[in-house]
Amino acid sequence: MSRRKVSHKRRPGRPRGDASGQRELLLDAALACYARHGITASSVRSIATEAGVTPALFNYYFGSKESLLEAVVEERLLPVISQMRQAIESAGTDPRAVATEFVQGVHAAVARHPWLPSLWVREILSEGGALRDLLLDQLPPHVPRMLTERFAAAARSGELSGELDPRLLVVSLVGLTLFPLAAAPIWRQLFDADDVDADALMYHTLALLDRGIGGLA
Amino acid sequence: MSRRKVSHKRRPGRPRGDASGQRELLLDAALACYARHGITASSVRSIATEAGVTPALFNYYFGSKESLLEAVVEERLLPVISQMRQAIESAGTDPRAVATEFVQGVHAAVARHPWLPSLWVREILSEGGALRDLLLDQLPPHVPRMLTERFAAAARSGELSGELDPRLLVVSLVGLTLFPLAAAPIWRQLFDADDVDADALMYHTLALLDRGIGGLA
Repeated sequence: MSRRKVSHKRRPGRPRGDASGQRELLLDAALACYARHGITASSVRSIATEAGVTPALFNYYFGSKESLLEAVVEERLLPVISQMRQAIESAGTDPRAVATEFVQGVHAAVARHPWLPSLWVREILSEGGALRDLLLDQLPPHVPRMLTERFAAAARSGELSGELDPRLLVVSLVGLTLFPLAAAPIWRQLFDADDVDADALMYHTLALLDRGIGGLA
Repeated sequence: MSRRKVSHKRRPGRPRGDASGQRELLLDAALACYARHGITASSVRSIATEAGVTPALFNYYFGSKESLLEAVVEERLLPVISQMRQAIESAGTDPRAVATEFVQGVHAAVARHPWLPSLWVREILSEGGALRDLLLDQLPPHVPRMLTERFAAAARSGELSGELDPRLLVVSLVGLTLFPLAAAPIWRQLFDADDVDADALMYHTLALLDRGIGGLA
């Protein structure tokens, strides 16, 4: 994770560097507020309060809600995507290995960044979500396209059943990873399933996919 | 903003029965507004406008936003759930048949009620969604519990692989049906997949599940 240097010159009204990680605190606080209340509903004041800093300090680091959102995307979201991309790139061509790498990558990312599933539901999956256009228009769709290309190649070589659609398989993978992680508070309560942890979920998902994906047999 | 006049021949302030289906129109309009803007953000005025009736007529039929929501749940949501329940009850004990019935049931329900996936994302899956507590606290969890019991029985008899968790399999089914239907505008654009219709999605999903679910082999 990159940390940007701020000016070390002490000027009146300006804090001294970021020795206490206040900028990072603000990024974390923004993500917590975004996941809890949505991006639109997260005010500068609520984010500053969550971070335990003054609104003045917020303004020093980001200046506006929009710049903060840009920084969150650039410094928190894109690195997660980029890390997943590297993991999947290294998985080779076997569709089961690619799917396994994706499932493990999502679980690892969510373990490190617990805000990810809620943010995804609220700002990408929900109609009018603030990050949906960003995903569709601005981000290079590396990870989804890379996955569909791998699966399409596997379908051509017979490593993937012709009954499965390479593009829809990527949709299935998201529905079997981000969705259950986002819905965990619901199904844990509905099924009295406090005993089911993320590892059990991952094991179940990998078993389902390992059986479901495969050669022509 | 279109405002339609109602007949004035009756007592002041009271429309003549529901000959023109205005109450039904208001329920439909509520669902459209809920799915588009969320339940909290859907005002009486916007729902009345969507239905093409006056706010006074809205008040005659429902009196408040809360009563309208209750009527929508009672008359529009619960019948969908009840219909799915009947279909699954008739599916017997084979876990693949149960899963197939569930997948076909969700697809049929969404074909009839296109507002279903958006409403589900916004009001159940999103943290703080207005229908989440209703699902967890008030609705009898017939469908999810019935599904887990079927799958648990199948696991005991060896019809379902022991690698799969009967409760998580229900979560997987939702992630492979409601999620891809809710996310269709996203993946269609991301993958240039306008050629993939709901039937193709259902076929893919049934193939994945039919392979993924099965005996101990």
